[in-house]
Amino acid sequence: MLEKYIKAARREVKADLVLKNATYADVFCGKLRKGDIAIVDEKIVGVGEYEGETEIDCSSLTVLPAYIDGHVHIESSQLSPEEFATLIVPRGTTAIIADPHEITNVCGTAGCDYILKASENVPLDVMLQLPSCVPATPFETSGAVLNGKDIAENIPKERYFGLGEFMNYPGVINCDGDVLQKLEAAHSVGKIIDGHAPSVYGCELNAYLCGGISTDHECVTLEEVEEKVSKGMYVHIRHGSSTRNLGNAKALTPANMRRLILCTDDRHAADLKEKGHLDDALRRLVADGLDPVRAVTCATLNVAECYGLKYRGAIAPFWLADLVAVNNLKDFDAKLVIKNGKPVAKDGKPLFDTSKRYLSEGVLNTVKVGEIKAEDFVYKLNGNRVKAMTIEKGGVVTGCETVTVKTENGDVNVKGTDILKLAVVERHKMTGNIGKAFFKGYGFKGGAMGITVAHDSHNIILLGDDNEAMAKAVNALKEIGGGMVIADGETGEIHTVTLDIGGLMSSRDAESLQRDSRALIEKAHSMGVKREYEAFMSLAFLSLAVIPKLKILDTGLFDVEKFGFTDIEA
Amino acid sequence: MLEKYIKAARREVKADLVLKNATYADVFCGKLRKGDIAIVDEKIVGVGEYEGETEIDCSSLTVLPAYIDGHVHIESSQLSPEEFATLIVPRGTTAIIADPHEITNVCGTAGCDYILKASENVPLDVMLQLPSCVPATPFETSGAVLNGKDIAENIPKERYFGLGEFMNYPGVINCDGDVLQKLEAAHSVGKIIDGHAPSVYGCELNAYLCGGISTDHECVTLEEVEEKVSKGMYVHIRHGSSTRNLGNAKALTPANMRRLILCTDDRHAADLKEKGHLDDALRRLVADGLDPVRAVTCATLNVAECYGLKYRGAIAPFWLADLVAVNNLKDFDAKLVIKNGKPVAKDGKPLFDTSKRYLSEGVLNTVKVGEIKAEDFVYKLNGNRVKAMTIEKGGVVTGCETVTVKTENGDVNVKGTDILKLAVVERHKMTGNIGKAFFKGYGFKGGAMGITVAHDSHNIILLGDDNEAMAKAVNALKEIGGGMVIADGETGEIHTVTLDIGGLMSSRDAESLQRDSRALIEKAHSMGVKREYEAFMSLAFLSLAVIPKLKILDTGLFDVEKFGFTDIEA
Repeated sequence: MLEKYIKAARREVKADLVLKNATYADVFCGKLRKGDIAIVDEKIVGVGEYEGETEIDCSSLTVLPAYIDGHVHIESSQLSPEEFATLIVPRGTTAIIADPHEITNVCGTAGCDYILKASENVPLDVMLQLPSCVPATPFETSGAVLNGKDIAENIPKERYFGLGEFMNYPGVINCDGDVLQKLEAAHSVGKIIDGHAPSVYGCELNAYLCGGISTDHECVTLEEVEEKVSKGMYVHIRHGSSTRNLGNAKALTPANMRRLILCTDDRHAADLKEKGHLDDALRRLVADGLDPVRAVTCATLNVAECYGLKYRGAIAPFWLADLVAVNNLKDFDAKLVIKNGKPVAKDGKPLFDTSKRYLSEGVLNTVKVGEIKAEDFVYKLNGNRVKAMTIEKGGVVTGCETVTVKTENGDVNVKGTDILKLAVVERHKMTGNIGKAFFKGYGFKGGAMGITVAHDSHNIILLGDDNEAMAKAVNALKEIGGGMVIADGETGEIHTVTLDIGGLMSSRDAESLQRDSRALIEKAHSMGVKREYEAFMSLAFLSLAVIPKLKILDTGLFDVEKFGFTDIEA
Repeated sequence: MLEKYIKAARREVKADLVLKNATYADVFCGKLRKGDIAIVDEKIVGVGEYEGETEIDCSSLTVLPAYIDGHVHIESSQLSPEEFATLIVPRGTTAIIADPHEITNVCGTAGCDYILKASENVPLDVMLQLPSCVPATPFETSGAVLNGKDIAENIPKERYFGLGEFMNYPGVINCDGDVLQKLEAAHSVGKIIDGHAPSVYGCELNAYLCGGISTDHECVTLEEVEEKVSKGMYVHIRHGSSTRNLGNAKALTPANMRRLILCTDDRHAADLKEKGHLDDALRRLVADGLDPVRAVTCATLNVAECYGLKYRGAIAPFWLADLVAVNNLKDFDAKLVIKNGKPVAKDGKPLFDTSKRYLSEGVLNTVKVGEIKAEDFVYKLNGNRVKAMTIEKGGVVTGCETVTVKTENGDVNVKGTDILKLAVVERHKMTGNIGKAFFKGYGFKGGAMGITVAHDSHNIILLGDDNEAMAKAVNALKEIGGGMVIADGETGEIHTVTLDIGGLMSSRDAESLQRDSRALIEKAHSMGVKREYEAFMSLAFLSLAVIPKLKILDTGLFDVEKFGFTDIEA
């Protein structure tokens, strides 16, 4: 094997493929260089002057190492891994550190199995992190539980690249026994542990790091980036749909630049399709003044170093021939993508076929609720002063306001106000749990809307001003096996988009799914959802009890800062 | 285990040891910070404000991660690993990537066994590279041979950290079958391969790299550094005794700085004692204008990253508590060295005992030569125009000059000229081989001097102007079991220093060995060896057939550039 590479490198034989006359990024020296890039099998064998069996003129292109997404939940695209690949590979990404935290919360390790198996036939390397926090908190009902023993049993398996983001930072800091078992299990087999520690500082951060946790993608201030980098963490520059921290790049200095890496975390299909993936992040970072090669380094070599991916993320002899040729370092318009030495996308279109997509029983039929009636959404209160959740525009952080509601006939009537009923209906274990809250400022009126995507336990998030419509919405979601729904209270019509894989992702092709999703989102806006919110996806974070401040779980209203339940009444 | 760290990090319990009020280097951000450094067991658990069971005031000190030598042959110190540790640990080095290439060339893997075993009782982590090129070239007689099959058998063993410097770069570039077997064996178990490719550029360098070789410590120009770094190599900034390339640090830029690492390669005990180890390199680099924290990063984090040493080389929670507290970042005078969380050296003195040193039969009695007589050093020539080797001052590169010698009585008489007889006497297999050459400009007169240290096969290097003295010198080396000798042709006296371990190292303590070595070196200078040369150690490179230009082997005169033997007559 080496012989083949060496002979081609020496020009004794022609290379398989040569990218001729390329300008290419040298991420080791932070420079652009010129030359031919010679490829044999899946390896780059040389840069310089080469001839190939196949030659592609790259004189008008700039060749970069293909991008590596340092942390992503495929599920957030609502697409199967195959269809996800059709959107990101043509943009220049050929490897991802994937944490199937969402589908595992619904389906257990069958979710991991599905993601791996479904990724096998697309030109995208999926390094699968075993989700560490299933459920994310002990306070809610998820579809599966991976306790310390389960993690210890699974993490040694070759299929698991590392341990996924350790969201339960209070558990680490407080030395929860089950948490420590998980961490020790990962260490004992030398696997990397991803972190998640928003606004954790000082000696609490030290304690969290003593769990042996390596990364953080939740930094929102430059001070936070600086402290975390200085304490040895790799910090992600995140470019998701709801959570975008490209501003973290402002913390880059010559001295620390190796420790910052790009990721998308959660990014919707529509954004991937219309704006792009890491290419979009690069475009924005460079527009914002960052040196292009430095930006590219954060999306390539730095990620590879962080995750110990050898011979990846640079253009050099013996390194993996995963490359993207872009029009220039302003647009980052991917003209050609090469994976393992072979062209896999051209002019933004995949050259691979995903019409046959893998499916498994283990991830289907996951909406398990009993009969739901309008009465289930009656709010019985003692007073009329309540805590209402609010949501920050363009983020996932929620706030809390005390408001006055109108009570009548033993229920609350929110019609005609800026307040909505917000409910979480348990959908995994038929517990009948319905968590109830109020939600202020979203704008929706005249019915109900709901979704089976609700980080991280993915119960049904439902909001509305009409008990009847709320019940109809849940029953519709049950019928379609998961997805998004709007029940129009006036017309009685039900509008749905099906997400049959774990209630999170669609087994359909990206294009038709997006068309239908767009229509449903428009319907939501037409019923009043303010344009500053992502009509459905903003809801998906309302039960994420690891992000401040107030969240709603199937088990009740949750105060993240106190890390315990709180009463709905003020 | 984690619980203990986490609780101390949170300040629920006192740390074992706290370095109070330290200024410390943050090598992630390239900054100095202030705070207490808390240690539990062998780990740093926090930086900030801490209390400890033991506290050491560091308010007047600067604490750095302890240094890691990226590439060193312990044998070049002529000391046992234990005594070597007494010199480098108090200077701040607590880990080394050790390539026991020399002793393995003499004793085979018994040499590796010895180095590992002898290192066990000193506070120095020895990552042992399995020597890849034993012998360094197929042209000479060494004490052992490790062929492809031997490497394939040995490299999977846990004791071997990686594959040692691949000096046989022509073998790689020419796809020698045995060479490829070695490289493939190392790859198949995912172990790092160190490089050695002086002045290899362009597509030949590409070919060498396609052997999957990661590092190079032979760069002598900034262009060479730049090309090698740009092609993915880690490049060493070397501070040996004979080979010093601190100038490579001039190639450091903000973009490439992670790829340069410090090493010493070959450093004599006298230099270690008098000038220092990596501390001396740091001192000089900073004096030469390099930012101190950046320099320290090249001796710590960068080395750890290059060799995949996790949680080493920085001061951060969960990282190994290997630290050195220096007086300032100009002198780098090590006041306190901490290894695995415990003080191991103070004010330049070791706090560990090395009076009991390990020895094994496998490395003793290694000078195996038959009877040697004065006639063995008769030079029979056809003409009087000969090639004479020259040596560059302060380096290991040799040159070639054509000179005229005086022939008489069927021998060459060099007495009273600037030319010496230079011979290599085989000492491993009793072959009787004696390679003969001429050596110009060294200055020695009136006898013979010899040494059993001769890279890389370690036959006896002998020079002189007196056949009788040359024979006596060899016989003396045989008698003492290896070492250094001067046979005074006038007085008939024999002066020796014994190197009983493989003929390379002494089983004695560092101090008495150095005293005697110094006396012998002085004797050599008194007999004319120019002060610009290291009287004995400069000789040790005269048979190193992987460094240009002309070398002498036990099998004859060797032209490194043609990579073949050449006639002594011009």
